Amino acid sequence: MDDRAMFAIALEEAKKGFAVGGLPIGACLVSQDGEILGRGHNKRVQEGSVIKHAEMSALESTIQDPAHPPPASVYRGATMFTTLVPCVMCTGACLLYGIGRVVYGTGADQSVAIDTLKLLEDHGVETVGLGVQECEEMMGRWIEENPARYRAEPWCTEA
Amino acid sequence: MDDRAMFAIALEEAKKGFAVGGLPIGACLVSQDGEILGRGHNKRVQEGSVIKHAEMSALESTIQDPAHPPPASVYRGATMFTTLVPCVMCTGACLLYGIGRVVYGTGADQSVAIDTLKLLEDHGVETVGLGVQECEEMMGRWIEENPARYRAEPWCTEA
Repeated sequence: MDDRAMFAIALEEAKKGFAVGGLPIGACLVSQDGEILGRGHNKRVQEGSVIKHAEMSALESTIQDPAHPPPASVYRGATMFTTLVPCVMCTGACLLYGIGRVVYGTGADQSVAIDTLKLLEDHGVETVGLGVQECEEMMGRWIEENPARYRAEPWCTEA
Repeated sequence: MDDRAMFAIALEEAKKGFAVGGLPIGACLVSQDGEILGRGHNKRVQEGSVIKHAEMSALESTIQDPAHPPPASVYRGATMFTTLVPCVMCTGACLLYGIGRVVYGTGADQSVAIDTLKLLEDHGVETVGLGVQECEEMMGRWIEENPARYRAEPWCTEA
């Protein structure tokens, strides 16, 4: 699997969100066979959602026909590409669906004092950091431009 | 806080889902001050959703106005009432939002080999089991009536 090419889709999603004022975090879910299963970005601002982080949106976008959702086996061993290190909710979702790898852009702290990369690795999920500084920079800009919204987030590190 | 009274709301939600063929799992989120913040049930069957477990639906239902979602502080120290032991995704969501207590009906295994009660407790969340057998019995009936859907679930324990 070409990690950089698949990661580019996650980054494109992050930029889509950022373009409309949303949290600039994107994700793309790719099966073990290299098939793109889903993609999405954070909808916190756009929908006020508490649960639609980028990884969750990518997971939810795998549903084509609500009457016939894909069986869980589709997700097993898949790779979750995400622009920032996943928070603990998204980490839990990856563990629930048996995601095999998590490939992230950079490691901005969103983890409410929980080391999510360790949690993933402790349960057999490979983690790969690509060192894409742009991801963290976009988030820095969003925080600067949205101080009040930032302070309302559970991962806000301000006192 | 009257745990039994609040739990009854979660159980009512589970029954609502069951009545329309959905997974019989319900949840109710109550603030530290005893205010009901949200309630909901699993929407796997109804919407084909991959992420709308009962606890997630309860969290999402706390949004009244998408333009002004509650700040994260609203959830801190709250109690999540749920009819079954939370899966690892919902456990992660509870940890993300700083939920202080998880009160569950019974402990049917949905945890894909991860001890979620231990994970909660390891991070300072109190867990309380009420021993409400009805919760597990309803799930047993759903599994009996929906063998194909059950086998498509990540928490299916069949070979």
